[in-house]
Amino acid sequence: MAIITLTTDFGEKDHFTGATKGAIFSELPDVNIVDISHGVSPFNIPEAAYIIQNAYSSFPKGTIHIIGIDAELNPENKHIAIELDDHYFICANNGIMSMICSEIAPRKIVEINIHDKIQSSFPVLDVFVKVACHIARGGTLEVIGKPINNIKPINNLKPYVNEDKTKIIGRVIYIDAYGNVVTNIRRSFFETIQKGRKFEITARQYKFKTIYKKYSDFINFDIPKEKRQDEGKGLVVFNSGGFLEIAMYKSDSKKHGSAATLMGLQIRDAIGIDFITVPVVPQKEDVF
Amino acid sequence: MAIITLTTDFGEKDHFTGATKGAIFSELPDVNIVDISHGVSPFNIPEAAYIIQNAYSSFPKGTIHIIGIDAELNPENKHIAIELDDHYFICANNGIMSMICSEIAPRKIVEINIHDKIQSSFPVLDVFVKVACHIARGGTLEVIGKPINNIKPINNLKPYVNEDKTKIIGRVIYIDAYGNVVTNIRRSFFETIQKGRKFEITARQYKFKTIYKKYSDFINFDIPKEKRQDEGKGLVVFNSGGFLEIAMYKSDSKKHGSAATLMGLQIRDAIGIDFITVPVVPQKEDVF
Amino acid sequence: MAIITLTTDFGEKDHFTGATKGAIFSELPDVNIVDISHGVSPFNIPEAAYIIQNAYSSFPKGTIHIIGIDAELNPENKHIAIELDDHYFICANNGIMSMICSEIAPRKIVEINIHDKIQSSFPVLDVFVKVACHIARGGTLEVIGKPINNIKPINNLKPYVNEDKTKIIGRVIYIDAYGNVVTNIRRSFFETIQKGRKFEITARQYKFKTIYKKYSDFINFDIPKEKRQDEGKGLVVFNSGGFLEIAMYKSDSKKHGSAATLMGLQIRDAIGIDFITVPVVPQKEDVF
Repeated sequence: MAIITLTTDFGEKDHFTGATKGAIFSELPDVNIVDISHGVSPFNIPEAAYIIQNAYSSFPKGTIHIIGIDAELNPENKHIAIELDDHYFICANNGIMSMICSEIAPRKIVEINIHDKIQSSFPVLDVFVKVACHIARGGTLEVIGKPINNIKPINNLKPYVNEDKTKIIGRVIYIDAYGNVVTNIRRSFFETIQKGRKFEITARQYKFKTIYKKYSDFINFDIPKEKRQDEGKGLVVFNSGGFLEIAMYKSDSKKHGSAATLMGLQIRDAIGIDFITVPVVPQKEDVF
Repeated sequence: MAIITLTTDFGEKDHFTGATKGAIFSELPDVNIVDISHGVSPFNIPEAAYIIQNAYSSFPKGTIHIIGIDAELNPENKHIAIELDDHYFICANNGIMSMICSEIAPRKIVEINIHDKIQSSFPVLDVFVKVACHIARGGTLEVIGKPINNIKPINNLKPYVNEDKTKIIGRVIYIDAYGNVVTNIRRSFFETIQKGRKFEITARQYKFKTIYKKYSDFINFDIPKEKRQDEGKGLVVFNSGGFLEIAMYKSDSKKHGSAATLMGLQIRDAIGIDFITVPVVPQKEDVF
Repeated sequence: MAIITLTTDFGEKDHFTGATKGAIFSELPDVNIVDISHGVSPFNIPEAAYIIQNAYSSFPKGTIHIIGIDAELNPENKHIAIELDDHYFICANNGIMSMICSEIAPRKIVEINIHDKIQSSFPVLDVFVKVACHIARGGTLEVIGKPINNIKPINNLKPYVNEDKTKIIGRVIYIDAYGNVVTNIRRSFFETIQKGRKFEITARQYKFKTIYKKYSDFINFDIPKEKRQDEGKGLVVFNSGGFLEIAMYKSDSKKHGSAATLMGLQIRDAIGIDFITVPVVPQKEDVF
């Protein structure tokens, strides 16, 4: 049974998501429709790029992903379908796919050309559903579009590294439900630059010298629980998507605060990493 | 496989939606349950009417729609089931269905009478699920209710037109996730009154003389993107449901504002349309 | 077809829920995945306990419930799987299951031991999905964990009763989408103590002497609707989960207020019930 996922900024109230699912079932009675998110901030392309990047690869090969963000067709915003990593993506050519495509080369990209003369103000329902069901029935991309070679990029995707590779400057690209602050610094990128050196991470006035493997790793469980003060401690992890994240242990933005609210970190804020090359000085025991 | 949709004011946190789905699966293992919305404002019947009106017709014929808004059974709020447009609707007789029924005549309406003596504070689970599963198994409405002829109306459903048909006064009936403002003026109604005349739409102090086919249609794509200022421009469209909508291009209520927040438009506010009949005066070239 | 439910604090925006569903479909193509809630407040164990308690029993026997709240594995937070009431529950041993287990004894509890050396910051995806799919394929709990006898309790689960049983003091444990205030006083517990006596319920300065069967039961339908003022009236019911609830008729926290906002009731606030034993005094007609 085909799987079609939905990632949109439709929110949880309006009829848009329900109508889209109804249209899919009308074309394709046997299908699993899976919501990835309808809570993307309106027209927020970097947010959508981050969410789809982190969700898609858990799905089985062959899954079809509809991304309905800023999807209205116009001369500057064409519709595309992409085959990449044995998954299919249907969206507008507005940068949403550039995060995934910067890591894995697409096998095929087409500009969708099945639009007839009717102007649509609901392209996800009128166009994307048709393309998704075509693919689900085994149709090829060439039938619904003409091949193109490049997609539109988004800015600030990659962190900056200085010339002598002693410094990375990344940016906050996402703040999650716990108020944890995700940067554009991937573990693989970090390790390539780090080459085993010590480092110091700077987020506003806060400094961190350790990247933990999971959120509770900083806790000293040898001390009895009632003598520790763990909650609300700031820490750095590589999150489950492989991105460097400034987190707060058991944070809650609405109650006692989170990394985002307590450290005052916002989307696009700079996060610095300085690498410390230990000078090769003679050690005392070496000299005498 | 039967499809049962859910439209409720249960929100996204409580157990009500999950429990309802569990009860459906307990009666009917092979069923597709589809959420239309659980974000209807509590007890808000016009909102629910608008959402179900715009979502239902995308679904395949035979779909069963449970609408759980203000559903507690009492002498003034009976439970009904309706067959209309080859779809089934189960809800309280509280006006929710009057928007759909004002356009398409129901084939059958029954007042549900399967309630036993137990008073229920969760009628969606205790009554609506049973009726939905009965219909899904091929049961007829007569078995679970007695036929009635009319349902309760809601007020302000139709816009006002003055006697000489130079003016429509409609109302805001819905504000969507983008903060776009939907009126009760349908395209078909508008065109019947308009008869090709020019017009001016008034929403508070704002005036509009054009209704666009989609949101980006007002943009002049001949001017390079960086020289235009498109975002946050107010405009009028007929939305995908066919309702006149005052929108803002790429709006976001939480960030830079929306039609609702920036123009100060709220539910029930009046929206006027004046039709301008060009006087048949002798034209210069006609005279000399 | 197996049913796997999800109850988490992932919220409606991030990729966590979508990724979890993708991972389930990758292991188990034929499965019904049902969201119970992703709106639990971050790390809020009592809230999650209340939601899963009220949702699970509507599902068919054999349903597998994944509960992803405060699920990171560490020496003080082990992963468990429980068989109870012919349902399966997979969660951290952090008190979430103690509300259900206080009513129904588990048939089996195991501490999950399939974790390999990899430290995971996303245990729902990495561990719970694997366990759920193992159970869905008919696997036994002994294969994925070692039997244990007890689970961690949560505090304030049971209301207090004074020695001569004239008084119950309960607590607010949950506030629902309508702003209705749920206490930890179950109907069965109340009736055991009440033994038919009259009572007075005290919530801050508000007093109630009746517990209704449903929300609209207090209305006098003999008076015409336009002469009554029903909305916003406070009342007490046993809710559909069997818990004593202080409610407001047709409340809406965001608009005209709710039981929680108007009476100022919050989580953990005390709710008192005084039982009045009518003294057996000689009645006038008895004497003369």
